[in-house]
Amino acid sequence: MITKEQITADYQTIQDEICLALENLDGKSKFEEELWERHGGGGGRTRVIQNGNIIEKGGVNFSAVHGTLPDVMKKALKVDSDDFFATGVSIVIHPNHPLVPIIHMNIRYFELPSTMGTSNPVRWFGGGIDLTPHYVFDDDASFFHQSLKTTCDKFDADFYSKFKTWADDYFYIKHREETRGIGGIFYDKLTATDNLSWETIFEFSKALGRTFAPTYIELVNRHRNETFTEQQQLWQYLRRSRYVEFNLVYDAGTKFGLETNGRIESILMSLPPTAKWAYNYQAEQGSEEEKTLSLLKKGINWV
Amino acid sequence: MITKEQITADYQTIQDEICLALENLDGKSKFEEELWERHGGGGGRTRVIQNGNIIEKGGVNFSAVHGTLPDVMKKALKVDSDDFFATGVSIVIHPNHPLVPIIHMNIRYFELPSTMGTSNPVRWFGGGIDLTPHYVFDDDASFFHQSLKTTCDKFDADFYSKFKTWADDYFYIKHREETRGIGGIFYDKLTATDNLSWETIFEFSKALGRTFAPTYIELVNRHRNETFTEQQQLWQYLRRSRYVEFNLVYDAGTKFGLETNGRIESILMSLPPTAKWAYNYQAEQGSEEEKTLSLLKKGINWV
Repeated sequence: MITKEQITADYQTIQDEICLALENLDGKSKFEEELWERHGGGGGRTRVIQNGNIIEKGGVNFSAVHGTLPDVMKKALKVDSDDFFATGVSIVIHPNHPLVPIIHMNIRYFELPSTMGTSNPVRWFGGGIDLTPHYVFDDDASFFHQSLKTTCDKFDADFYSKFKTWADDYFYIKHREETRGIGGIFYDKLTATDNLSWETIFEFSKALGRTFAPTYIELVNRHRNETFTEQQQLWQYLRRSRYVEFNLVYDAGTKFGLETNGRIESILMSLPPTAKWAYNYQAEQGSEEEKTLSLLKKGINWV
Repeated sequence: MITKEQITADYQTIQDEICLALENLDGKSKFEEELWERHGGGGGRTRVIQNGNIIEKGGVNFSAVHGTLPDVMKKALKVDSDDFFATGVSIVIHPNHPLVPIIHMNIRYFELPSTMGTSNPVRWFGGGIDLTPHYVFDDDASFFHQSLKTTCDKFDADFYSKFKTWADDYFYIKHREETRGIGGIFYDKLTATDNLSWETIFEFSKALGRTFAPTYIELVNRHRNETFTEQQQLWQYLRRSRYVEFNLVYDAGTKFGLETNGRIESILMSLPPTAKWAYNYQAEQGSEEEKTLSLLKKGINWV
């Protein structure tokens, strides 16, 4: 049986590996770490990198918290347990370059020690990686989705298509009628079945965590030395405002954090360093900006 | 009996007056108008002014809409009517100058033609004006609150203290434990009583609308010619990010608009042209920024 101590330890290792890889990628800035403790139990390691060669603002956060389950979460999860344990690694990277995409990754594990009179713990894994290019390039989108599919396929033939659709549905900005980016994979409440062991689910979670760095490094290196215009930078800031809208209005993790008095600066590290809202901004016909908007849709097959 | 046609017409006049006053104040940019129609019935006049001498982005919107009440709103309002009528004027002004405050005003009227078996319409007025200085100046705060109090006192001796407290409670960013600004007044569902006629409530609504321009003009003119530093501009953009957080996470009008497929560009015209999120930004001890933070609290008596 995989213990929560083992999951916690492996997630911390993954956080360390990713921070090292991103520092090497950036070549200038280093992560600053803040250790924090949660009133109710547990704590975390918030690591933020800012004003780098390529990373303008990024966070790679680890936390492992436990305590009494807030009522609002009992309702949301439809469970009747008083205690919970949750651990995870959560990443958002905002590059300073409009041709380099924003990326988000999360792997997480959740456990309710005993639930509704049974003595068995309820437990599940969740996570995903998704990409928000300011400008969508077909080659990059295919490469990104292929990387995720390759990882998924090692564990279950259904994972990629199932979790890809899930990401399309989850990262959707309803009031804009557009997806946050080109999606990726997203899954939640993944539990063992006759055909899927806890070991496989755990190994998949770690493999996903380890898919993040090489995939993002490739995407960054494809574009970091390209020149860009002021107009492209403006577009980047406008796209970032949609990222803000998604995270503050729809993102389940953010909402949960705000409602349960989570550590605000860790929760909102996902928000971009600079964002712009222009009234009724219209992309020019036939422009790269318009092409990007046309690709922010559910159901595009990128592999 | 005051009719909804009369309220609609007077609110449009107030929109016209305010736009004229703000164009004169700015001296450079003019409002651009978009007329829009609502699928379910009614429409509006969205007027936006951008890149002015002092107004970086501002909206003065009028709408008068009617139709079928969405279920989500029936629940929120705790009513059982199928039809509704709503009209109002809504303003947010983001200045380009960190020493000039952000201001917000709204006056609105809501009517349910007949409700829960009665033949009498349910109707109410709501509204308010509140100020969000990037830097709080005591003199300005006193002047602003005194202007509101003077208008309130002409109609009801209790209005100011009641509606001032309401604004403190409403414009509160719970996850930051700070108010959005120095408040002002806010009221909702104001209906006639033995001591308060519909005429008085309507006259109060219009008087509040007409308090907006002279009050804001005075505040702008106090500071528009002062020089400011890059550091002060950065602080302005950081404060604007709190404005975004309030509007997207808590503001009832914004949430309602997003949930009911309102006209997105009109609803989100309240968001600032540029906003910044810095990780864990700390104001210097003894600085003007720290003083401002210390005054973003409920219950300060400014008059």
